[in-house]
Amino acid sequence: MTAIPVIALDAMGGDRAPDIVIAGAALARARHPDVKFIFYGDEPRIRALIEQHPELNTVSEIRHAPDVIAADLKPSLALRQGRNSSMRMAIDAVAKGEASSVVSAGNTGALMATAKFVLKTLPGIDRPAIASVVPTKIGESVMLDLGANVECDAENLVQFALMGAIYCRAVLGISNPTIGLLNIGTEEMKGHDEIRAAAAILRERALPGRFHGFVEGNHVPAGIVDVVVTDGFSGNIALKMLEGTAQLITYFVRQTFDASLMAKIGYVLARGAMKKLKLRADPRRYNGAMFLGLQGVCVKSHGGTDATGFANAIAVAYKLVDRRFNDRIGEELARHYGSVGSVTVSDENFSEVTDITA
Amino acid sequence: MTAIPVIALDAMGGDRAPDIVIAGAALARARHPDVKFIFYGDEPRIRALIEQHPELNTVSEIRHAPDVIAADLKPSLALRQGRNSSMRMAIDAVAKGEASSVVSAGNTGALMATAKFVLKTLPGIDRPAIASVVPTKIGESVMLDLGANVECDAENLVQFALMGAIYCRAVLGISNPTIGLLNIGTEEMKGHDEIRAAAAILRERALPGRFHGFVEGNHVPAGIVDVVVTDGFSGNIALKMLEGTAQLITYFVRQTFDASLMAKIGYVLARGAMKKLKLRADPRRYNGAMFLGLQGVCVKSHGGTDATGFANAIAVAYKLVDRRFNDRIGEELARHYGSVGSVTVSDENFSEVTDITA
Repeated sequence: MTAIPVIALDAMGGDRAPDIVIAGAALARARHPDVKFIFYGDEPRIRALIEQHPELNTVSEIRHAPDVIAADLKPSLALRQGRNSSMRMAIDAVAKGEASSVVSAGNTGALMATAKFVLKTLPGIDRPAIASVVPTKIGESVMLDLGANVECDAENLVQFALMGAIYCRAVLGISNPTIGLLNIGTEEMKGHDEIRAAAAILRERALPGRFHGFVEGNHVPAGIVDVVVTDGFSGNIALKMLEGTAQLITYFVRQTFDASLMAKIGYVLARGAMKKLKLRADPRRYNGAMFLGLQGVCVKSHGGTDATGFANAIAVAYKLVDRRFNDRIGEELARHYGSVGSVTVSDENFSEVTDITA
Repeated sequence: MTAIPVIALDAMGGDRAPDIVIAGAALARARHPDVKFIFYGDEPRIRALIEQHPELNTVSEIRHAPDVIAADLKPSLALRQGRNSSMRMAIDAVAKGEASSVVSAGNTGALMATAKFVLKTLPGIDRPAIASVVPTKIGESVMLDLGANVECDAENLVQFALMGAIYCRAVLGISNPTIGLLNIGTEEMKGHDEIRAAAAILRERALPGRFHGFVEGNHVPAGIVDVVVTDGFSGNIALKMLEGTAQLITYFVRQTFDASLMAKIGYVLARGAMKKLKLRADPRRYNGAMFLGLQGVCVKSHGGTDATGFANAIAVAYKLVDRRFNDRIGEELARHYGSVGSVTVSDENFSEVTDITA
């Protein structure tokens, strides 16, 4: 257990590791002056990189990890063969209470499988979910699951709704968040059995927010609800459609300004505003997918991001720890169910209990 | 079936019917001088509107339909109670061979259920799918299913792939279209059983195109494949995320140009190019969802569209007839399976009612 914001970093995960991990940590340190890091990976390489960022010197520790989890390694193999990998050792640090959280830009499947195995799920939560903040017309929403669970039953979806709402309250400061279930229509009869059953439960249950009902794909960027709940298959496709379409339209805009001399001059005049637009739509701003529902904070950075993006992923982990997100889940579950024990899963969830988020 | 381009129009479907239906027909007539219309609905109102468009006079027939299918009527009720509705009568015209195709901006679920019941599926196709052309970085792709089938088995997905590829060949003029299955990763192990089984079949089977493998959400706007195959649940969410995100980014762009005086001046200079951008991203351009796999051409217009959008939906129907899309399906199935008769369609396929949205 640690209150000190020590963040374990998998220095070897991602396309441009370890360089962007150390550079990202330096950016994050400037933003959060109380943060400390433990880097896991190839010690000599990490040491050399830290020398280029002297501000990291006094706040960083390096732990040598001989192995690296390959980007295409199957999660099951990563679990079996990865005991001495930078990813596994960084997650272990959270389980041991040496770090409050872990950030990795490595293999998503391996990270989820390992985090689930090492950290265990929170009492009252059956399955962890991948969540991310997405931009909307009126601000930001949180969407989950984004790919951890290809198939979800009604209770899984309800638990995702709870976690999303608690995230809104704890991290985004929205006191009464609205919750929507992503569906193909807003009428009660729409969708498949699981989603209709989840809606029935959410309509009845006391929630840390308000159940809005079903929402459709276009309602997500419109910001109709604060929490968008979906299974991991549809959620992953939805998030990537959002990313891809944002890229498509910005590409169309760029082409537009290249189309004529007048348009080019117009672009030069609007350059300042266009820069702000670019920042606003910058995917790096939204880098850092949260693995919610684990006994420990685990954040996945995009594998292809740069130092700025990686620093944002670190900021996501920092906030989850700082706002006591995991404690809040326990508190809210206790509030809504009387005692967390009553909703709980099996004993195995408590066997390796290390509450590291306090 | 008729080779004469007579199109049956449900004059009473959609938010602004019958006005935009007749106005849309007038626009379509200007584009396709050989087209003729049969309008189904409230005869006096339709007659009054046609008087405002004298160019429609000699090429239009009006058939009075006493009933209208309400926008929120359940598909099963629409089937039972809608015998004298403008929608049903327009579909009946295709079944009778009086019209080559039908276009409606009415209740999607009712339209699909009625079209399926009246027209029946094509031999070799178990379930119809909703398809639409979507804009991409390099042109256009066709995506299906967009909501007719919430759950699909592997064979359904394979048939969607076939229909999508044939559409590309017949209508888009792409001789060897690439086919992708929408998934949450490109590796073979990704996704659920049905999609992996569909991939296994598509890898083996002779196709009117080339199976690319799995594609992710962001690959759709990037234009990685010509045909995007998915179940109706994910497909509907994906399409609406595309629409919503396009709106979001264009909203950001508009805000950008309002942000400063310089940006406003820049906008004025770039106005011509911006207009082209607006046209390019105009959702009306992509109006007209195709119900593929039926023994007849049926196109669903967005309920909230205007005359321009409705004219585009008519153009979609016109092209499907003109390029003999349904005949091509039969020909391709015969080519690939020896005889279409070997793939049987059971009676139960006609009895079930699908709830959908598009």
